[in-house]
Amino acid sequence: MNFDLSDTIVALATAPGTAAIAVIRVSGQNAIELIEPFFYTRSLKKKSLVGKPSHMAHFGLIVKQNEIIDEVLLTTFKGPNSYTGQDSIEISCHGSLYIQQQLLQLILSAGARMAQPGEFTMRAYLNGKMDLSQAEAVADLIAGNSSVSHATAMKQMRGGFSSKIKALRDNLINFAALIELELDFSEEDVEFADRSDLKNLVHNIAQVVETLVKSFELGNVLKNGIPVVIVGKPNAGKSTLLNVLLNDERAIVSEIPGTTRDTIEDTLLVEGVLFRLIDTAGLRTTSDVIEQIGVHKALQAIQNASIVVYLFDVQTLSPEDLTLELAEIKEQVGNAQVLIVANKMDVEDHTRIKETFNKFPNMLYISAKETLNIDVLKQKLLGFYDAQTIEKSDTIVTNARHANSLQNAGNALNNVLTGLENKIPGDLLALDIRYALTELGQITGEVTNDDLLETIFRRFCIGK
Amino acid sequence: MNFDLSDTIVALATAPGTAAIAVIRVSGQNAIELIEPFFYTRSLKKKSLVGKPSHMAHFGLIVKQNEIIDEVLLTTFKGPNSYTGQDSIEISCHGSLYIQQQLLQLILSAGARMAQPGEFTMRAYLNGKMDLSQAEAVADLIAGNSSVSHATAMKQMRGGFSSKIKALRDNLINFAALIELELDFSEEDVEFADRSDLKNLVHNIAQVVETLVKSFELGNVLKNGIPVVIVGKPNAGKSTLLNVLLNDERAIVSEIPGTTRDTIEDTLLVEGVLFRLIDTAGLRTTSDVIEQIGVHKALQAIQNASIVVYLFDVQTLSPEDLTLELAEIKEQVGNAQVLIVANKMDVEDHTRIKETFNKFPNMLYISAKETLNIDVLKQKLLGFYDAQTIEKSDTIVTNARHANSLQNAGNALNNVLTGLENKIPGDLLALDIRYALTELGQITGEVTNDDLLETIFRRFCIGK
Repeated sequence: MNFDLSDTIVALATAPGTAAIAVIRVSGQNAIELIEPFFYTRSLKKKSLVGKPSHMAHFGLIVKQNEIIDEVLLTTFKGPNSYTGQDSIEISCHGSLYIQQQLLQLILSAGARMAQPGEFTMRAYLNGKMDLSQAEAVADLIAGNSSVSHATAMKQMRGGFSSKIKALRDNLINFAALIELELDFSEEDVEFADRSDLKNLVHNIAQVVETLVKSFELGNVLKNGIPVVIVGKPNAGKSTLLNVLLNDERAIVSEIPGTTRDTIEDTLLVEGVLFRLIDTAGLRTTSDVIEQIGVHKALQAIQNASIVVYLFDVQTLSPEDLTLELAEIKEQVGNAQVLIVANKMDVEDHTRIKETFNKFPNMLYISAKETLNIDVLKQKLLGFYDAQTIEKSDTIVTNARHANSLQNAGNALNNVLTGLENKIPGDLLALDIRYALTELGQITGEVTNDDLLETIFRRFCIGK
Repeated sequence: MNFDLSDTIVALATAPGTAAIAVIRVSGQNAIELIEPFFYTRSLKKKSLVGKPSHMAHFGLIVKQNEIIDEVLLTTFKGPNSYTGQDSIEISCHGSLYIQQQLLQLILSAGARMAQPGEFTMRAYLNGKMDLSQAEAVADLIAGNSSVSHATAMKQMRGGFSSKIKALRDNLINFAALIELELDFSEEDVEFADRSDLKNLVHNIAQVVETLVKSFELGNVLKNGIPVVIVGKPNAGKSTLLNVLLNDERAIVSEIPGTTRDTIEDTLLVEGVLFRLIDTAGLRTTSDVIEQIGVHKALQAIQNASIVVYLFDVQTLSPEDLTLELAEIKEQVGNAQVLIVANKMDVEDHTRIKETFNKFPNMLYISAKETLNIDVLKQKLLGFYDAQTIEKSDTIVTNARHANSLQNAGNALNNVLTGLENKIPGDLLALDIRYALTELGQITGEVTNDDLLETIFRRFCIGK
């Protein structure tokens, strides 16, 4: 990663490929001076850009040694009122691969260099246009594919999360300063920082931090999809159900019990909420070694699931066996909610079956084969996570790095609390407080280092 | 195709896919009014767009029922100073698929409709921002993948070709008017249009038209790639040469003579000039039916080639046999230039071989296997078509529709000339002149019809 802000960077900012238009982005303190010599009016007179007002779109030609590369629309942005905080230019050209390439080559040969992934956003961060967690939200926003991940990224990009962390940290800094002051007067055994006030403050901060750490479990699930594991005996129709839910021939389906051995995953979007569907090997004792591994994987998947869909063949399983089966499943389930689904309602008399299973009032009756009640099943899944509530809810941590820093800060704060109980000296308290401050500061980037920045910006698109 | 200009059209203008940014284009007489209600400042206050100066980029939020869809950069263009000639907006948003979709849905639900391919450019044409041949050049410019096709499309888009056609047509119109006037006075047998002036004029126009028609042969070749056919006996190394030129394992290579049976085509770009390389079945008498078809196809390819590369195995063919072979090949060749290439210079003593073949001074010695002299071969190919000359040369017709109209106009003009020779009456002359005017007018779109427009704009990208 190049942290030098003095050179001019350039990249294609739109998706690669032939299209109506493409946009090339240039940023650097000399970006406008660098492009100006190539900019001409339609009648091939030089056109000035330097000194023109910011945020204006100029129509003109880009000309390289008498050859017209393209008619373009060129918008200049004067720093600091630009995305990166530096002078920037966006060139909207015809979306021909040849033209895109020629323009990039021209700008490179004029002295710019290719931007690294995320470098425009990194410059925005380094120039104080956004903090680190906001910068990370930009990447999340671009990658987000559901209304929930979009809403949480948007909230984070707009700084809601940052200001919360900043407030916690500012409170702590005040006390830290007093404790540090005590250290200067350590011979005199004074206490500038009131210990009971400090205890209250640290207690409050630790609680907020804990809530945020907990929200990550939900946040992570929302971002990557709520894991829904489909389990059941061989031939219950699990793969058929997966395919019907996905509206795709994702899993191989056959009448031979034990067809699925690997766990098969795919995502399903229901009204903006992303689910990660996991089809598993049918649960049975088997001598097939590969199938055994599959059954083991299925049991693991159950443990990590948020929702377990227990599917059974309503035509072959008795209510007594179902009770036994469910007891076994529930032993494996972690925090997940279990949804019992009776499959193969495609042949028999519905009323009679429902009477047979009347001990299970919340059971859902479907036919995967005939797509009966599949939409009801989707709504049931949705019911477990109410997107509206989530969107309106308070800050949700969706970033593993943030969760990790919060966890570390929380531990340090708990150490401070224990230390206060045990009346340990100020210098030891100061150590833990400083550690908590560093961890909180790393979330927003007030404390940072090159490796961290490199890790963060590497996952961006080129041109952002 | 919808020729109604009163509604607002919208489309994604950048290539589909996840990227740093994407641009959505909106055009229509109410485009700005349609978008304004959704546009907010960062602090969620309504932001006005109507009445703001044209060509300004505004930063803000697009908000739909309290949900922030994105932070965008929105540029307004007031008609007629816009691409389409109508009020237009370009929304530069984060390049997330979800955001692109949400923005499009919002704009559609606000009353816009999806633009058809080329509809923005069609509006530009219908609003007189460009003529038809310029509009067609926009599509060529976007599709162009070589410096030559780019240069010819750029020239055409900037109106060089149009003004030439327009000048021809205007001259003809003046005379046509006089002839038509004669028809009104047909009883009186007057001649307002001087017949010898008319003859000179029509003769001159016919000559320019003929030159343009002829230029199409070159133009077409430049646009689609100059056809270079590689021919020779089985096992001369034709497929190896093709692969080496393309730097790719395009054709299956083996030591078994007759490996290639289909003609294999791929394009090669040498310093901006596009070549269409065609590998053929080795020329020999064979009993293999499929190979026979292959040989027949090879002979056809030779006839249509611009350049024939005759490749032979320098280790097995004698100069006498080469002379015989070349005589046979030359019978098949149409207008192509023939380049004789001695292959397999990888083993033997070069000096001795070159002495053996000293009767063939322009022959090129290569080794496809060891990539010896392959760059020289590329330069030789390039030498046949000097891109610089072409770029500087006068108008080149690259569009089959234009060539066809020019051909028809030329025929009509020749009829006029014959008619003048035979002193046929004015009304018959007028008929042919009108026909020529119509054909010329169709090139620039001064004369047009809906079907023609539909055919032309259908081949555009969406969003252009």
